[in-house]
Formats: sequence, structure tokens, C-alpha cells
Amino acid sequence: MKNTADRIKDINLSEIRKMFENASPDAISLAIGEPDFDTPPHIINALKKALDNKQTHYAHNKGLIELREAIQNKLKKDNNIKTDSESILVTVGASQALYSSIQALINKGDEVIIPDPGFLSYQACVKLAEGTPISTDSTPDNNFNITTDKIEDKITPKTKAIVLNSPSNPTGTVIKKEDIKGISDLATDNDLYIITDEIYENIIYDKKHYSVASFTDNAITINGFSKSYAMTGLRIGYLAAPPEITEDILKVHQYNIASVDTPTQYAALEALNGSQQCVIDMVNEFRKRRDYVVERLNNMGLTCKIPDGAFYIFLKVKNTQEFLNKASKEGVLVVSGKAFGKNAEDYIRISYATSIENLKIAMDRLEKIV
Amino acid sequence: MKNTADRIKDINLSEIRKMFENASPDAISLAIGEPDFDTPPHIINALKKALDNKQTHYAHNKGLIELREAIQNKLKKDNNIKTDSESILVTVGASQALYSSIQALINKGDEVIIPDPGFLSYQACVKLAEGTPISTDSTPDNNFNITTDKIEDKITPKTKAIVLNSPSNPTGTVIKKEDIKGISDLATDNDLYIITDEIYENIIYDKKHYSVASFTDNAITINGFSKSYAMTGLRIGYLAAPPEITEDILKVHQYNIASVDTPTQYAALEALNGSQQCVIDMVNEFRKRRDYVVERLNNMGLTCKIPDGAFYIFLKVKNTQEFLNKASKEGVLVVSGKAFGKNAEDYIRISYATSIENLKIAMDRLEKIV
Repeated sequence: MKNTADRIKDINLSEIRKMFENASPDAISLAIGEPDFDTPPHIINALKKALDNKQTHYAHNKGLIELREAIQNKLKKDNNIKTDSESILVTVGASQALYSSIQALINKGDEVIIPDPGFLSYQACVKLAEGTPISTDSTPDNNFNITTDKIEDKITPKTKAIVLNSPSNPTGTVIKKEDIKGISDLATDNDLYIITDEIYENIIYDKKHYSVASFTDNAITINGFSKSYAMTGLRIGYLAAPPEITEDILKVHQYNIASVDTPTQYAALEALNGSQQCVIDMVNEFRKRRDYVVERLNNMGLTCKIPDGAFYIFLKVKNTQEFLNKASKEGVLVVSGKAFGKNAEDYIRISYATSIENLKIAMDRLEKIV
Repeated sequence: MKNTADRIKDINLSEIRKMFENASPDAISLAIGEPDFDTPPHIINALKKALDNKQTHYAHNKGLIELREAIQNKLKKDNNIKTDSESILVTVGASQALYSSIQALINKGDEVIIPDPGFLSYQACVKLAEGTPISTDSTPDNNFNITTDKIEDKITPKTKAIVLNSPSNPTGTVIKKEDIKGISDLATDNDLYIITDEIYENIIYDKKHYSVASFTDNAITINGFSKSYAMTGLRIGYLAAPPEITEDILKVHQYNIASVDTPTQYAALEALNGSQQCVIDMVNEFRKRRDYVVERLNNMGLTCKIPDGAFYIFLKVKNTQEFLNKASKEGVLVVSGKAFGKNAEDYIRISYATSIENLKIAMDRLEKIV
């Protein structure tokens, strides 16, 4: 048969996913970016109620109007973002928001500045749009923090967009307010888009989250329910963009997925409108786990900074591949820094989105190999 | 802000969707391609059971293995297609299967032969991949049937794929076995892919459905649960392709949507494994409605052929826009043939996926305007 399309030639399937799929039942996976918590019962009940109400027909392409209005209110209240329901798209997780936005914005050869180390989808989505991913030259100081200077250095006449992700996967770093503002100003002044993945906004410990779209009109804000509400497998997220950009993203979205699962949209509506105590409880539990793992690692002589957000510890090791092999042999799965770009080959990512009991066993096992 | 991407410049948002969204509450919509039936209770119960079993975490990117095995068995039993679970992807409806397949196969400038009249996503998806859609020169004889000759006429050195859709939206036409085989042979001989959208396979009246993939290895078979099981809003479908092509489509699929809603995959599993009586009952009801509408239209002097499949009547009218306006004024929404390509501007599409009671009111209203 004839060759498949050029745009996929340089795309690798996720190593993390493969690892996840090949894990032995005895192994403890600290590899996957997924809360271990059950989806809160009131959210599940809202989904069941939607099924009882026979809400199984197509929803509006942009998403249920009630849900878009709830998202609009949430963005105003929590993020200081002024938008309207017509500028919001409900998507199949933050993933499809990211993919469809980049497809709608990026032409062949357009440069997109992406965090490095960063979530591997950023690079893949830019390549699938035949754009050129440009890595930030993040350095280990201050846990690979992204600053205004680092972004400014990478802007060329070909730059079309900047991807930001704070709190960050894999580093857990939270971008400072002054840099969120500084990078927003760069976008405004240089006529660039900022695609801002704020999926970990609630999983933040002692710092405050600032949204790009509160500082510039050029932002496409991406968020979702997976991490904050333990709804990964329910596949629901959203984006908010300037109205004319939302209409352009809709052109991809409509022919890509038509609309998002209807009953799940009612579950998401309940997540926003119901009590937020479940989020507070989960974040408190994540904090305990973070502190436990950091302490155990430091006691082993593996010094690491305390991350400010998300549920990952990004740890420098002497020999990454050797560490991964030994850890795997002992029954602990972690991810190589290589999966997140070229700037963090000496690092591994440890996800602490699993129980303290599991973390204890995993740390006991790692203790044997260091 | 800078221009958005070229690939969306020529993409129109669906007129049918807009019509659907703007419909007044009194109007009867014969516009949308969606069964009015409730999703069968045993399928809903399987979804609820999955929720009770806390199946709300990420599924495998390709889809739950149990579901892929059930699809493999279904394709063998119903469609005479030999495949395996690794060659199957579970998708967000047939839409995302179609979109992701075309993204994985089509380069800028590649020609893709698409049915005209045909489902409007075919043209949009080809354009979003920067390919060139080539319309079949279908003619009203035999309800715009697609034949081997008509496809062969359109093959050039630039042709990379052929999209087929039998039973057809919007015409209801079923491609003959000899043509399915003939077009399959053309694909094999010319090294082309056939993307075969078989979403309406069960909604067929006196003819038999033949699957392209039973005649050629070059087929990407697309199907789903929306139409056969009244699961439109649950957004679940699938594709089966040669194994190396499935891996290539997965490269798009994984970064586009990550995975499909997990509990809904259990609902789809029950749809395949449970009793098929619900499908038989729905198709019998569709047949009654078809016969009723055809008789009423013929009695009005609007002669139309009896369609062999799907749930649409494709009807020639004297002045399409005038007919649409008058019908809308009387409270009946139908779709212009223009929405389906350039070969059917004198036609309208009437969906009979609504109750006999609604169809009676709609026909009484149309009677006033002809």
C-alpha cells in the first residue's frame, strides 16, 4: 500500500503508556499521571441521573450550554478570566483541546515554543500540525522554571505560539506571577498565541496559580476535570479562547469528534456546581504523599526540591537507564526524563498519585538500589 | 493576532447542526441524522454497572481489550472480516475514526475520491488533512448509486484513497455486491486505501450489506454504536485496519483524544454481547416509517424511490430553497441537497428517524406547500 502521511513519520507512541501497559501485576507504578482516587460519588450520581433522564442524544458541538455557562463562571471566579459561553468548547479531555487548538492555529513551518522538560503531547501535537517545536532552554536551577527571559530568547519571526503548563508536568514547578505576566506581555507585543495548559491548577501547595488569560487576550486556556476531580477515564475537558479563535477551533473539533459524551457533561456540570471539598481533600492527601516521598528520597541521599504543584517529583539520578532498569527489576516503575525532552536526560519522574501504602513499598524497594 | 491555520480556511461549520440548534420548539425536525429511540436499557445498565465498579480510570489507548475482542468477533461473524484485537481502535464515534484515519493517510495534494452526494464530513476531513477531495460524478439514476465504473473514472496517479458509505447518507442507497467487489479490486490493483464507513450497516431493509474488507486488505473499516444501538450521545465507534496502518492511525489517535470514555466502553461491550433484538425492533420501526413517508410523499405528487437503507429519503424538488423556506415556515425542517455536495442541488434530505406521530404532522404540513 502507499505510504501513510508525512505528518506522522516522526511521531512516537508514548513510552509511558507502553510502560503502563506492560507493567507486571506485582510492580508498583509511579509512572502514570493519573489520580488513584475514585471519582467522587456526587459526580458519579449526576452521570447516572443523566442516564436515567435519557440524556444519551447528541449534545451541542460546543458542549451543553449549562456546562459552558458553569465553566464561564468558574473561569471568572477562580481565574479572573472574562469570557462567555460561546467562546468555550467542551472537549474530550484537555488532550483534544490541545490537539484541536494546535491544528487550528499552526501551519507548516510555524514555530511553537514548548516547555522542555514538558508533557510529551506538546511536541507531538505541534509535529502533527507540521509545525516546528522549539524547546525552551530550561535548566535545573529552580526546578526547570520557565521565565520571561527564557521565552523571549526563543521568539523569532516564525514564532506563532507559546505553550505554557503551570503547575508543570513533569517538574511540579509553578510559574511565578511576574513571569506569567511577562510572558503574556510578550505574546501581546509580538502578536503570538499562548496555549496555556492549566490542568493541574488545583493541585498546588503553597503557591498561587495565575492564569495567562487574566493578563492577555491572546490566550487559549485549556483545562479539564481529569486531575482535579479524578475523572481521567471520563474524558472531559474544555478550552476558552477569543471568540473568533473558538470558531476556528470548532472547525477542527466538529469534524474530529462531533460532540462530547452527553451524560458525562452532566457529571462535569456537577463537578463544577457541587461541593469543592473533594478537591481540597484530594490535594491534602497529595501533599502528605509528596512530603513522604521527598523525605524518603532525601534520606536515601537522592536530594530533590519540594515541588510546588502537580503530583510528580522530578529527580536527578546518576545514570538514568541504570536506575530505571534496577527500579524495574525491584518492581517500581518510573519514567525517564528523556520522555519529556532533551533538557532532562539525567532525571526521572516519580508520580506520587498512589496510596501512601504503595509509596512506602515503592520507597523501600528503591532504597535497595541506591 | 496572527492568522489561524490554512487547513481550516475552507472549512464550513455544518449547516445541519446550525439548523438543529436554531429549531423552534414547535418545528418538527426531519433534519438530523439521529435515531429518536432511547438507548436500550441493558446497555444503559452496563454503563451504570461500570460506574459502580469504579471503571473511571484511563483505558488502553486502543480501547479495552475485551471490547476490541468483541469487535473482532463481530467483524468475523457479521462482516466476514478477519482481523485481530491489535488492529482495532475504539474511537469517539465513527467521526473520530474517520478524522484520524484521514489525518494518518493523506498528505497535502493527495486525491481522495468521496461520494457526492455524501456525508459532509468526508470533504471536510480530507481538507483538514490538506488533501484534495474528488467528487464521484453520481447521477440521479438509481438514487445516485456508486458503481465500479464511476470510481474507476476518477482514479489518477494522485489518488490515495476512496471513501465509501453503504448504506448511504443521504441517499439511502446500498452499493451492490458486484460493485463492492469491483471497487475493492480497483483498490488492490492500484494500491489505494478504501475508507469504508459502514455505520448504517444494520439499518438496511431488503438488501444485504457487504463489507469492503472481506474483498481487499486495503480497507479501513469504520463503524460505531450510534445508529444501530441509538447511542449517538455516548460517542463511541471503532475502526479496523491492516495492523501497520492501525499503528499509524494510533499516532494521531493517542495525541488527539488519548483514550475513549472508559465506562461507555463497557456499554458498547454489552451492545455487542447482549441480545440483538433491540436492533431488529428499531429497524422494523424504521421500515414502517420509511414506507409511511414514501407513500405520503408519492400521494402529494413528490415521487421518490424507496431507499434500501439508512433512515433518509432523498427527494427531488422543483426549487430547493423555496421548498426549504416554505417547509420551515410551516414548521418542518429538512436539509438541502447542497449540504451533501454539488451533484444534488435539486434535492432535499428527509430524515425519518422520528416517531410516526411526528412524521404524520410533518407530512400534513408539507402537503400544504406542494
